[in-house]
Amino acid sequence: MAEVRSLNIDDACDGILVQSPLPKALGKAVEQEVFDTIDPAKDVDCFHPANIGRLTQGRAVLAPCTPSGVIELLVREGIAIAGQRAVVIGRSEIVGKPMALLLLQRDATVTICHSRTKDLPAVAATADILVAAIGRPGFVTPAFVKPGAAVVDVGINPITVRQDVVTLFGAESPRVATFDSKGSVIAGDVHPAVAEVAGALTPVPGGVGPLTIAMLLKNTVIAAEQRST
Amino acid sequence: MAEVRSLNIDDACDGILVQSPLPKALGKAVEQEVFDTIDPAKDVDCFHPANIGRLTQGRAVLAPCTPSGVIELLVREGIAIAGQRAVVIGRSEIVGKPMALLLLQRDATVTICHSRTKDLPAVAATADILVAAIGRPGFVTPAFVKPGAAVVDVGINPITVRQDVVTLFGAESPRVATFDSKGSVIAGDVHPAVAEVAGALTPVPGGVGPLTIAMLLKNTVIAAEQRST
Repeated sequence: MAEVRSLNIDDACDGILVQSPLPKALGKAVEQEVFDTIDPAKDVDCFHPANIGRLTQGRAVLAPCTPSGVIELLVREGIAIAGQRAVVIGRSEIVGKPMALLLLQRDATVTICHSRTKDLPAVAATADILVAAIGRPGFVTPAFVKPGAAVVDVGINPITVRQDVVTLFGAESPRVATFDSKGSVIAGDVHPAVAEVAGALTPVPGGVGPLTIAMLLKNTVIAAEQRST
Repeated sequence: MAEVRSLNIDDACDGILVQSPLPKALGKAVEQEVFDTIDPAKDVDCFHPANIGRLTQGRAVLAPCTPSGVIELLVREGIAIAGQRAVVIGRSEIVGKPMALLLLQRDATVTICHSRTKDLPAVAATADILVAAIGRPGFVTPAFVKPGAAVVDVGINPITVRQDVVTLFGAESPRVATFDSKGSVIAGDVHPAVAEVAGALTPVPGGVGPLTIAMLLKNTVIAAEQRST
């Protein structure tokens, strides 16, 4: 907390991102207090309630990096958002909810799904744009995907059991060799078989992840510019 | 603005609600500035971005009155929310968006529709709970409603043309007599014929409207209690 306060008043610091989750021993209340302490003008991943409020109102200066990256990706790939059905699986503060709000702001018809959603594959399959942010490797199978839909895989899940890699990617996959040399591989929330159904699909790793970093730098530049005017 | 500032520091004032919309001549920017000026601790209709952020994060102390009233109504009527499909038509800052967030917080699978939504009746007809907050009299016809769904009508639309009353409610309706004596009647966003399809339907007037006022008083008491502790 003291560190955040000192960065708040340090003029050489333009952006503050507290990597969550904080150690569990601290508890949720302390974690929230830390986020609430960040100067909203330096809050480059949009954790402060005042910034989330502005995001909800569609007038965010700093938007959360991962969802902003997804919007940037859809726009650059020429994928229409306005008037399209978008389904977001996952309702986290850091991805799911802001993702839904940004898609809504771009005039998509947005549905937010989560662990309590009934008939999840059927609901997901209504989507023209499907965003998976659940945190379970290979959870989104072809049954979740309308043929031709754009599928954005936000999941970054380490797999540390060899058999799980073989089951998910197949014994012939280069990922098995990667596992054998590194002892783990990264898998997204989307099952590899979805590639045969989707119109477009972001890879994991190398898809949304690098974009998130890019948006973080962009937000830091915006924050610096705002503070200097 | 000066009035809001003086109420902010007036200890005898527990709650501030600026009735929107403000006169159009003032412009949107000034209206937003007025809302942003309200002390979040006295912001009993949840207009301040810090309060909207807390609402989005699911930790609101003061939630917007109309959507809170709708939740209260569903709970009191014993209508299940968790795991149900909810569709909100309308994405205003004051009803649509916070309504969607509160339904999500109660574990509904939530879809937000708006003027750019394609096949709106079909999307609406997926709902177990349908909330209409559009501002167009009789807009939601039976084609929008799954048989047995709970339909909440947030619309409060004055009708000032006699023929419109006859068209919407029928020549035999008591509303025609009301019109003849008063020169106008109030109609909701939901068409009267929906009563034959819906499992439950809030009336207009007399439905959500009075609940909004009750929630406003409740929020004012909460705000007063919070400030005195």
